[in-house]
Amino acid sequence: MIKAGILGGGQLGRMLLQAAANYPVVMYVMEKDADCPSAAYCNNFTIGDITNYDDVYAFGKKVDVLTIEIENVNVDALEKLEAEGLLIIPNTNALRTIKNKQLQKKFYKDNGLPTSEFINTQNKEDAANHKDLFPAVHKLAEGGYDGKGVVIINNESELDNAFDAPAVLEKKIDIVKELAITVAFSTSGETAIYSPVDMIFDNDLNLLSHQISPADIPENVFWKAEAIALQLVKKLASPGLFAVELFSDADGHVWVNETAPRVHNSGHHTIEACYSSQFDMLLRIMLGYPLGNTAHRSPAAIVNIVGAKDFNGEANYKGLEEVLAMDNVFVHIYGKAYTKPGRKMGHVTIVSNEKQELIHKVNQIKNLLQVVSQ
Amino acid sequence: MIKAGILGGGQLGRMLLQAAANYPVVMYVMEKDADCPSAAYCNNFTIGDITNYDDVYAFGKKVDVLTIEIENVNVDALEKLEAEGLLIIPNTNALRTIKNKQLQKKFYKDNGLPTSEFINTQNKEDAANHKDLFPAVHKLAEGGYDGKGVVIINNESELDNAFDAPAVLEKKIDIVKELAITVAFSTSGETAIYSPVDMIFDNDLNLLSHQISPADIPENVFWKAEAIALQLVKKLASPGLFAVELFSDADGHVWVNETAPRVHNSGHHTIEACYSSQFDMLLRIMLGYPLGNTAHRSPAAIVNIVGAKDFNGEANYKGLEEVLAMDNVFVHIYGKAYTKPGRKMGHVTIVSNEKQELIHKVNQIKNLLQVVSQ
Repeated sequence: MIKAGILGGGQLGRMLLQAAANYPVVMYVMEKDADCPSAAYCNNFTIGDITNYDDVYAFGKKVDVLTIEIENVNVDALEKLEAEGLLIIPNTNALRTIKNKQLQKKFYKDNGLPTSEFINTQNKEDAANHKDLFPAVHKLAEGGYDGKGVVIINNESELDNAFDAPAVLEKKIDIVKELAITVAFSTSGETAIYSPVDMIFDNDLNLLSHQISPADIPENVFWKAEAIALQLVKKLASPGLFAVELFSDADGHVWVNETAPRVHNSGHHTIEACYSSQFDMLLRIMLGYPLGNTAHRSPAAIVNIVGAKDFNGEANYKGLEEVLAMDNVFVHIYGKAYTKPGRKMGHVTIVSNEKQELIHKVNQIKNLLQVVSQ
Repeated sequence: MIKAGILGGGQLGRMLLQAAANYPVVMYVMEKDADCPSAAYCNNFTIGDITNYDDVYAFGKKVDVLTIEIENVNVDALEKLEAEGLLIIPNTNALRTIKNKQLQKKFYKDNGLPTSEFINTQNKEDAANHKDLFPAVHKLAEGGYDGKGVVIINNESELDNAFDAPAVLEKKIDIVKELAITVAFSTSGETAIYSPVDMIFDNDLNLLSHQISPADIPENVFWKAEAIALQLVKKLASPGLFAVELFSDADGHVWVNETAPRVHNSGHHTIEACYSSQFDMLLRIMLGYPLGNTAHRSPAAIVNIVGAKDFNGEANYKGLEEVLAMDNVFVHIYGKAYTKPGRKMGHVTIVSNEKQELIHKVNQIKNLLQVVSQ
């Protein structure tokens, strides 16, 4: 049987393991935390540092194909493994491009993919010298994750927040919609594209409120978003699954925000909403099977379950029973022992043909379910 | 986090692990074969004999709740654990009743549940003394599984096939339909019932051909089957998930054939066809959550993938790529390294609102997919 490895042991790895159990494959996971969400569901679990050359190289030697569930891995070791013939998904070229926001932006620009105006900055001073881009978004070149490593600089008075390390300063776009599109690219160059997801933000909390898929967007935004996402992935020219995040503005322009070269939160609804989930799709790519069917079985919404403000400690899911009693709702708890404010602890998917029902249940679930400490 | 154990490490355990990864629970599995389908997806895997008192008792001491994926376990150890306060699902009383076909038949009779006429036999001679029941089915009291331990005795000339061990001799029913109904019973006494499944046999091969759910049956058969299944589970008075197999005859009578006190092949379609799968449901029962929604998202069919005749050795799935390329089809391969004739190696679920499409794809898949050795 094929041996497949995952670098990183978070919830993405855990859901990939769930999907892997449908196939003749033996799964391997490496992560330094033995209590991570994936460890419990993988008998071939290795404790190791995914940013360490030797750990990654040694782990890679155990498997026939290797993927990541987070970009922050040792790419040098992956390059060595790739040169020795190991199939790495995504390939290291794509991973290097995406992992560094300066290279990612350059890639969009070089390939004519519409993206916000930007300059690279090495320190605060560089940012201060580009007031013409304000209001701007300042993003660390490396290591940002889940909103960390990103600040908004509306004007000069907020320059204190700027990063004093390599970063990208982007002109802020007047966003009407945030969209995400998942694209699959097989080792033989086939592509498959999922419907755009509408990422709906809570402007008061400055947090993702929920997602709805397929997105309710004008036709011209829809086809532009799909065309950009597909072209982007073709230009990356790497097998893998890619989550492309886009903005649309009031003029109907569509812009690439950023890309994740892996399964992604924006695609979790595909587990129940689509014939082939993003996790199933990634496994098909890794195992050399035909790509799956991205069509929706029904529209869906997702609510992320994050640790409540002010609670740190052993997780307790208040309201879980009420949510489990709902008719058309699928609960995913990631099995993290400890909660902290904002930590992703799970998600809930709602399926329904009625958009109003999706939104109604989103609001119910947001009110009912809270992750507190015991 | 609650610790939950499974006795047995086959495909049922593997699919239960897949569902468990949605909940805050730590899973434990015991099985003597370290290469069993469940082992790879459970980091708390114990090598042990589920029929051995000490092994079962020691394993039970590690967990907060315990279930089985096969009846052939050491019930004495479970009784001891239950007496010490461990939640066993199903309870040992129900397990003892069902595990022994003589007790199972007695239970049906004592509770007025319609079942074929029968007598208990201790040896061949006993069977020979009950020619009045011919044509009959002879079933070993203990240890039968997947059609093993069952013979047909049409007439005296076939008496050689009779079992020379404790068994049940049942008058053969003139079967029109074989049905299966899954019923959930929570620790607080709530019940939930899934739609009847039509088990369609290939009379030439004397094997299950495929299953369709919901079953296409007359209304009077439908409600009788549901009423019998529900009553049966209420009388067993045990928390758990129960697969009740029934027959209907030409007169519209419905008879209980047998019951499995666990997740069962007849319920595999629920993974994709229903809101709450049989595996999700069993976990809800084990964890004390509200029961799930048994409603169908769409009708479904299942084809079992069994080892082809004459092939023994490392499994090779001929035609798998063609089946994976089908639009509304979900493939489950159980990850068994070796195939042998008739061994259950996986199943394929087809979902569609069109019964004709279900049947068409059933036939396509049966023609395409073959498990041979390499």
